[in-house]
Amino acid sequence: MNIAAFIGSSRTESNSELLANEVLKGINHQKIYLKDLSIQPIEDLRHTKEGFQIVEDDYEQVIKAFMENDVIIFATPIYWYSMSGLMKNMIDRLSQAIRDERYQQFKRRLQEVETIVIAVGGDEPRIKGLPLIQQFQYTFDFLNMRFSSYILGEANKPGDILKDCQALSQANLLNKKLKMLLDPEEE
Amino acid sequence: MNIAAFIGSSRTESNSELLANEVLKGINHQKIYLKDLSIQPIEDLRHTKEGFQIVEDDYEQVIKAFMENDVIIFATPIYWYSMSGLMKNMIDRLSQAIRDERYQQFKRRLQEVETIVIAVGGDEPRIKGLPLIQQFQYTFDFLNMRFSSYILGEANKPGDILKDCQALSQANLLNKKLKMLLDPEEE
Amino acid sequence: MNIAAFIGSSRTESNSELLANEVLKGINHQKIYLKDLSIQPIEDLRHTKEGFQIVEDDYEQVIKAFMENDVIIFATPIYWYSMSGLMKNMIDRLSQAIRDERYQQFKRRLQEVETIVIAVGGDEPRIKGLPLIQQFQYTFDFLNMRFSSYILGEANKPGDILKDCQALSQANLLNKKLKMLLDPEEE
Amino acid sequence: MNIAAFIGSSRTESNSELLANEVLKGINHQKIYLKDLSIQPIEDLRHTKEGFQIVEDDYEQVIKAFMENDVIIFATPIYWYSMSGLMKNMIDRLSQAIRDERYQQFKRRLQEVETIVIAVGGDEPRIKGLPLIQQFQYTFDFLNMRFSSYILGEANKPGDILKDCQALSQANLLNKKLKMLLDPEEE
Repeated sequence: MNIAAFIGSSRTESNSELLANEVLKGINHQKIYLKDLSIQPIEDLRHTKEGFQIVEDDYEQVIKAFMENDVIIFATPIYWYSMSGLMKNMIDRLSQAIRDERYQQFKRRLQEVETIVIAVGGDEPRIKGLPLIQQFQYTFDFLNMRFSSYILGEANKPGDILKDCQALSQANLLNKKLKMLLDPEEE
Repeated sequence: MNIAAFIGSSRTESNSELLANEVLKGINHQKIYLKDLSIQPIEDLRHTKEGFQIVEDDYEQVIKAFMENDVIIFATPIYWYSMSGLMKNMIDRLSQAIRDERYQQFKRRLQEVETIVIAVGGDEPRIKGLPLIQQFQYTFDFLNMRFSSYILGEANKPGDILKDCQALSQANLLNKKLKMLLDPEEE
Repeated sequence: MNIAAFIGSSRTESNSELLANEVLKGINHQKIYLKDLSIQPIEDLRHTKEGFQIVEDDYEQVIKAFMENDVIIFATPIYWYSMSGLMKNMIDRLSQAIRDERYQQFKRRLQEVETIVIAVGGDEPRIKGLPLIQQFQYTFDFLNMRFSSYILGEANKPGDILKDCQALSQANLLNKKLKMLLDPEEE
Repeated sequence: MNIAAFIGSSRTESNSELLANEVLKGINHQKIYLKDLSIQPIEDLRHTKEGFQIVEDDYEQVIKAFMENDVIIFATPIYWYSMSGLMKNMIDRLSQAIRDERYQQFKRRLQEVETIVIAVGGDEPRIKGLPLIQQFQYTFDFLNMRFSSYILGEANKPGDILKDCQALSQANLLNKKLKMLLDPEEE
């Protein structure tokens, strides 16, 4: 079983990344830093004769991560009560990817992926982050992906997330679950 | 009274733009096509010594639109139950703009702006677009902006929005209200 | 095609009832005033040996309304951002009704019913009423009922709803749709 | 510091009560079983000449609980994605209580109360219970009460909640916090 995490912050060691680290502690995984990829906003060509055109950017790495992993973590700071624009552009392009003839297995593959959302914000995230969770739910429903769990953490300054006991305790629990999935014999 | 509309689609004459046109029919206004602007994703430098750095892109035009208008329309397609990445990047950068010493009046100015949200989607937008509306509400609350109304329209193919009677009827009503605000004597 | 409206207010001519009246103008319909029925809160006996027990109250009239009508309107004041307790008790008892051996057709019948929600509140209902709409959606989804539309109206004092142009315009549109459903030839 | 829990289920030892018990383990507290109280649905007389009339039922015990406690737990099963009708009727009557001349301190008193919500459901409560949490938030905001935290637990059959590790771990954390509040010296 393979695990990857998309990191949606523009900072390294952002609070959302740190919380993802807690979930992934002691687990072999891949990290994709969206800030280091060039991903164009989607150009909606669904309804043109030619359809979507091939875009020359790094989106292939996103596709690859979905194809090769069984659990995908979306770790994003909460900017204005929603995911970061960096992550939004990545998500938006899914509309193109699921129609791309070069990736015929992609849409079907998604249905085997289990998703986890980690979102960290400074303004009452456990309340005001709820619409974001609902949006992820609708998205995963549409794509028939399993939404296995989410953590909403609270932090403002760098590193603050490590003081959010509730988020840490949820991360810890999730870490144990993932380890059990990875190696059912061990526990 | 000045009115501007941010158009968040990657298409021209997108359904969300068409619906905004209905709201703006016969009203003098400015349109800002986000697809034609270069707007970098925010780089979160709030917590660094140097703070935010000046970004060389077209964001100044966004600032200008907020400064010079009294009513701002956010017209966006609903991509994955949320605003387009194009619009999200524009919104994200507000965090920088309200801290930018060059625009000292900006934050205060926002409080005088009335906002309208127009969002059009294909998958039950009047239900599944609700989290998006809640996020705009939290955002406007944070910035002390008045959120005067929203329209959720349904459309899939180009032009389909013109068949959504409910959205059109709401647009028509809003059009009348705006005209009355602009020229109270006439009605 | 038959139409019924459940009226969830404790007042007669409540704002939510008045708005339902607009939707039903010129249409033959049945009204069920929940305030005039005795409906016990559900006693959750799903997991007991004996299961649910027959309750001696007026719930049969609720069942009857669902069985005999094709369109059901739920008209409720928004009390504390949710439906009235009167209506909630009626909804809660559905859990019992769909398991009641006396009404074997009930659950299947629900799937043929089209639902409309009308909710009127005084504190930003078009924003703060959204969670209520989501709950109705989840409920109708669970029961496989069609949720055809909703209206969120704003009113505080008795009669105030008649000043809410947006709600009235939506009601008017819905009225036309219903008339067309009832008598497709006429329009 | 005094703690009380309103128990909204119609069953004893309901899953929501069991989860509240975990939060309250080792803590002196009062429990109010709403199923054992007679509470009339609110009769909305705000706009009549006479105003609200005194209702002869057990609501005084609810008022007393709010007056005498500093932390109030609302423990409810999730029925149809919302609180139980029993609890809804109790909440609805707050509209009357805050206007009741006999309880002049009531509204002010509420502002000193810290609230906790515990809700347990069987159909994806951590997603589909979110609108319920938003409604509590709006309610506490309106009343200026502090909403300190919530737990959404998953359970179907009696006792099942004790298998929900995430809910139990949140309850445990909350239990520690409450103990620290009660006796800051000890920890």
